Amino acid sequence: MSFRAEIIAVGTELLLGNVANTDARFLSEQLAAAGVDVLYHTAVGDNPGRLAEVVDIARRRCDLLIFTGGLGPTYDDLTKETVCRAFGVELVFHPELADEIRRYHDTVFHREMPACNLQQAYLPAGCTVLHNAVGTAPGCLFEKDGVTVAMLPGVPKECRHMTLHALIPWLLQRHDGVILSHALHVFGLTEPQVQERLADLMDEAVNPSLAPYAKTGEVMLRLTAKAETEEACQELMAPLFWDVRARLGEYLYGVDVDSLEEQTVRLLKERGLTFSAAESCTGGLIAKRVTDVPGASAVFLGGVVSYTNGVKAAVLGVPRELLDRYGAVSAPVARAMAEGVRRLTGSDLAVSVTGVAGPDRDDRDNPVGTVFLGFAAPDTTLVRRLDLGTGRDRVRTIASHHAFDALRRYLTGLPIE
Amino acid sequence: MSFRAEIIAVGTELLLGNVANTDARFLSEQLAAAGVDVLYHTAVGDNPGRLAEVVDIARRRCDLLIFTGGLGPTYDDLTKETVCRAFGVELVFHPELADEIRRYHDTVFHREMPACNLQQAYLPAGCTVLHNAVGTAPGCLFEKDGVTVAMLPGVPKECRHMTLHALIPWLLQRHDGVILSHALHVFGLTEPQVQERLADLMDEAVNPSLAPYAKTGEVMLRLTAKAETEEACQELMAPLFWDVRARLGEYLYGVDVDSLEEQTVRLLKERGLTFSAAESCTGGLIAKRVTDVPGASAVFLGGVVSYTNGVKAAVLGVPRELLDRYGAVSAPVARAMAEGVRRLTGSDLAVSVTGVAGPDRDDRDNPVGTVFLGFAAPDTTLVRRLDLGTGRDRVRTIASHHAFDALRRYLTGLPIE
Repeated sequence: MSFRAEIIAVGTELLLGNVANTDARFLSEQLAAAGVDVLYHTAVGDNPGRLAEVVDIARRRCDLLIFTGGLGPTYDDLTKETVCRAFGVELVFHPELADEIRRYHDTVFHREMPACNLQQAYLPAGCTVLHNAVGTAPGCLFEKDGVTVAMLPGVPKECRHMTLHALIPWLLQRHDGVILSHALHVFGLTEPQVQERLADLMDEAVNPSLAPYAKTGEVMLRLTAKAETEEACQELMAPLFWDVRARLGEYLYGVDVDSLEEQTVRLLKERGLTFSAAESCTGGLIAKRVTDVPGASAVFLGGVVSYTNGVKAAVLGVPRELLDRYGAVSAPVARAMAEGVRRLTGSDLAVSVTGVAGPDRDDRDNPVGTVFLGFAAPDTTLVRRLDLGTGRDRVRTIASHHAFDALRRYLTGLPIE
Repeated sequence: MSFRAEIIAVGTELLLGNVANTDARFLSEQLAAAGVDVLYHTAVGDNPGRLAEVVDIARRRCDLLIFTGGLGPTYDDLTKETVCRAFGVELVFHPELADEIRRYHDTVFHREMPACNLQQAYLPAGCTVLHNAVGTAPGCLFEKDGVTVAMLPGVPKECRHMTLHALIPWLLQRHDGVILSHALHVFGLTEPQVQERLADLMDEAVNPSLAPYAKTGEVMLRLTAKAETEEACQELMAPLFWDVRARLGEYLYGVDVDSLEEQTVRLLKERGLTFSAAESCTGGLIAKRVTDVPGASAVFLGGVVSYTNGVKAAVLGVPRELLDRYGAVSAPVARAMAEGVRRLTGSDLAVSVTGVAGPDRDDRDNPVGTVFLGFAAPDTTLVRRLDLGTGRDRVRTIASHHAFDALRRYLTGLPIE
């Protein structure tokens, strides 16, 4: 069976524009991959009357209602009460959940549970409990009058975790047939360049389907097949998969990986190599991204954020004459930074970034987006000049992508371009 | 008069989770500031039947409907047709808009206008044209049967530009009254602790209203007042504002600021002081966060990410005997790191973080969440032991909050606790 779903976010902060509704996007992505048609997103404030009306409209046009938000311990958290009243379902106290919430306070927050958190242990009678491993608000799921209702916390991290570990597995169980999906991650081609390489395949592809989507400086392609069994999905998908792989070539950096940094850490581990980073305009973003990956300490020794010429000279040993003659944003300085941090940390490989992230040009009148990327290995040091356009966050993010991609290319025997 | 608004996004890509509905957030923020109550967000796909039903529901519960998306030149762009049919308004060809769109292709894209773009020159009869300075799709605005309808392009850049330069000015002209709102940022108290301090105020507050919301390790409170004039809003708000300020005391780190790091940069600039950071478990996050703030180079000299003992000793000068005797996650090492990076960079102040972010305990069996924060100033070095619970991202984020808060406390003469 296939659901027609509506995602209903509850929270006045959404209507005031204080936060974006990222839960709806994440849920939609996951539900689409699980073969559920999402037909509507709705957001409504912490107002029981209006929420009740929204529930009423939704249950007439959809058979899967997913609520996010309003499961917290405070007076304005009223999703459960309002939804249960609308469906004529009672709220019941779950002592074992109260224990769980109390334990969560003990072990994670190291403090006593405030009394108001007991409210979170009330769930609809007869529901399936969706346990919350990363927060206190349990979610739940029940069926009534032909409609399936799920309630998830609004905190994005908790919503994501519960979606992936409880909601989607429950939905997949109810499904006839299987959906299989692969994410292909591309760096070094723009979205129009990817489209150009794959246009004929995208137009034709229905099952398996092929859809691109762009992130800052990257492109992700999702390949999805539906069939009776997993083997049938694989069989359906294989020819398209290999065709796409061949056309993307060296720009395809990973399949079903989390990120460029995760892929880089994996390759470094496989080869038993370490690296370090000297960062100017990225200001610690490369170090932050690599240490986001659990276990990065096996391959990342450390880095220097040299935000001033003084630190470039004193810590990294960049010669003063290079800084004076060429300026901090220059190929010779990028080279000296990469070699300097490699020498300082004793790593096998090193990357460096120096550039102008904006909002303004630097003191040598280099335009915003001018970035020099250095790469040092035992046998060679390379420098590339990049022209990354404008937007401070964008320039920093794409510059750090290039640093990881340089490592990936070196580790897989590709030219660093 | 005050509008009751619904924002309706049209586009299947939203329901597939390919993109987030950033237009709704931006519009909500701007509308709230202009005194418009946004009561609902809705997203629906490129499906005329479902869109017509959504229009039908919206016009019964709101008197300002703002559509985003579906104004493009392709076959699935059907917002204008569907909305006009629902309101019984004709679409009329505007030759001057066709000229404008043609000129935009000439001067910006440097190519001829495709014939399909002519579709964009049809707008509702008698409407106010909202000109598009940054794209080809014109927007429009009309009133019918007591409902005001606005249609804006979905491309975020175009939607923002048209909102700021055409929609909001039009609405403000029509409006009596003003909304004023302040965001109060709190660090060092949990959400329940904030509730406890402010419970009676929150229960009573209607206009001005007072609402909390929690981010990782932080709490934000929004205080909002509506009145005839800005002065009247200020007057209405003042007693509550000062009461809340007094109750939050030293934990209130800023009003209407973007973040703890922005506030820290501001305080450092005011006092003409610089700082540097030595990071182990935060892995560059402190450096990354401070360099997210434009102009940070005036106060942040740089940092060292010392992810291994080798780098702690060789770069920061942490004595080997301390590392051997106490382990990397210890008060003496945090102290030596802070003093080391301060000496190395020549900064006035320095922070250091060493701890166990997880997922596993460290080699000395310190539990996940054990973090030592070091703070070095010309006159003193302090170390605090923090117990931040579990969750790698959470531990890293909260540890970096504490580093900025230590700087803030020092700079404002508060004890570092």
